[in-house]
Amino acid sequence: MPTSDVKVIFFDVFGTVVDWRSSLLRLLAEYGAKQGIEADWPGFLTAWKAGYRPAMDAVISGARPYFNLDEMYLERMNQVIGDFGLDGLSEAQKQEVLHLWLKIDPWPDAVEGLTRLASKYTLVTLSNGSFAWLTAIAKHGKLPFDAVLTAENAQVYKPHPRCYLTAIELMGMKATPENCMLTACHNYDLDAARSHGMKTAFLPRKEYGPDQEADQAPESDWEVVARDLIGVAEAMGC
Amino acid sequence: MPTSDVKVIFFDVFGTVVDWRSSLLRLLAEYGAKQGIEADWPGFLTAWKAGYRPAMDAVISGARPYFNLDEMYLERMNQVIGDFGLDGLSEAQKQEVLHLWLKIDPWPDAVEGLTRLASKYTLVTLSNGSFAWLTAIAKHGKLPFDAVLTAENAQVYKPHPRCYLTAIELMGMKATPENCMLTACHNYDLDAARSHGMKTAFLPRKEYGPDQEADQAPESDWEVVARDLIGVAEAMGC
Repeated sequence: MPTSDVKVIFFDVFGTVVDWRSSLLRLLAEYGAKQGIEADWPGFLTAWKAGYRPAMDAVISGARPYFNLDEMYLERMNQVIGDFGLDGLSEAQKQEVLHLWLKIDPWPDAVEGLTRLASKYTLVTLSNGSFAWLTAIAKHGKLPFDAVLTAENAQVYKPHPRCYLTAIELMGMKATPENCMLTACHNYDLDAARSHGMKTAFLPRKEYGPDQEADQAPESDWEVVARDLIGVAEAMGC
Repeated sequence: MPTSDVKVIFFDVFGTVVDWRSSLLRLLAEYGAKQGIEADWPGFLTAWKAGYRPAMDAVISGARPYFNLDEMYLERMNQVIGDFGLDGLSEAQKQEVLHLWLKIDPWPDAVEGLTRLASKYTLVTLSNGSFAWLTAIAKHGKLPFDAVLTAENAQVYKPHPRCYLTAIELMGMKATPENCMLTACHNYDLDAARSHGMKTAFLPRKEYGPDQEADQAPESDWEVVARDLIGVAEAMGC
């Protein structure tokens, strides 16, 4: 079995384990209602999130020194709030909106899938989020990770090689990267993981909503292809 | 209350949370019996562990580049096995002996104390052990840490400032270190933590056995002084 050497399973988190978009659509609407602020919150979320990839790429290319995802989302918020009539938000309100990211919920299959996998494997995050945010999101969602690792530990974002290599080395697997597997809903992430000797598990998610077309199918012969995290657990004998 | 700002509690682990000595005395005796190897295992353990502080200090002073605790204990084993008639151990047996460290058990109060604290605070290790070992020890002991951080994340050992500052920064508390507390059974560790703005909690342990005299009382006015980890939980309102 191609995954029989696996001891440590890393997980992409945003999209793969947590449903950030549905959670934030709800949390932003609730926040707006509570504060009496009317706005196109779904449009704001789309514009806010659209800052993600360009910022990651600027760090990966070396155009900008590493800055973490919390800082990125605050910077991006300030860039786009004017377009949504939200430039009256106070600094305290901006912090409250920013920290809604810490209350995003797991997909319905995540806790069961991870709990089953944790009985046999060591489970570790490998996210582009900040270390503090990932710790908070795992605690909020009662996700049974054994440890948290993120881009912040490598001071660069996925898919830069250092992200994967730092995680493999911190888990003591430098000489045997085949003891590690990455689980993700993004083909590019698995492609990078495999290039460093890791095993790979793919599952499709509609993280951008029901119309999402990207990453709905495996684009390579990943060792595991499953419907969700319970499916990954089943494929891994848990 | 001097600890009312605390949000994140860091924990020293060897001695403070896990009873490494009693565990290893038992594990080494069991290993010897199973392998048919007679030796002064308690004497070996004392000599083995005695390599710890000199190795840490060599890294802190810059005399040696960082190497993790797994590597240190393997190196030290090779230095002392001859004194105990254990130089016939094969490389595989040395690895088995080394990995007995991953099976050390928590003190009897640890799981209850940490579980109560986890209901209100974010709990993070801050150990001189390697990242992989601490992840394994936490999983073995079912210790409800929310994240693992160790000297390996800072590439230097406690009490070097970078250990504490890296942990504070990764938890997003650079501007407010008073939101962090260190819990430890070693006064020197708390002294360093306080110098970087962290709150402090002390508890005495007999990690070196019933005759231990060091660190049986607080040597400063630590914010919390408790009998064990359940006592820390009580003092923190959990």
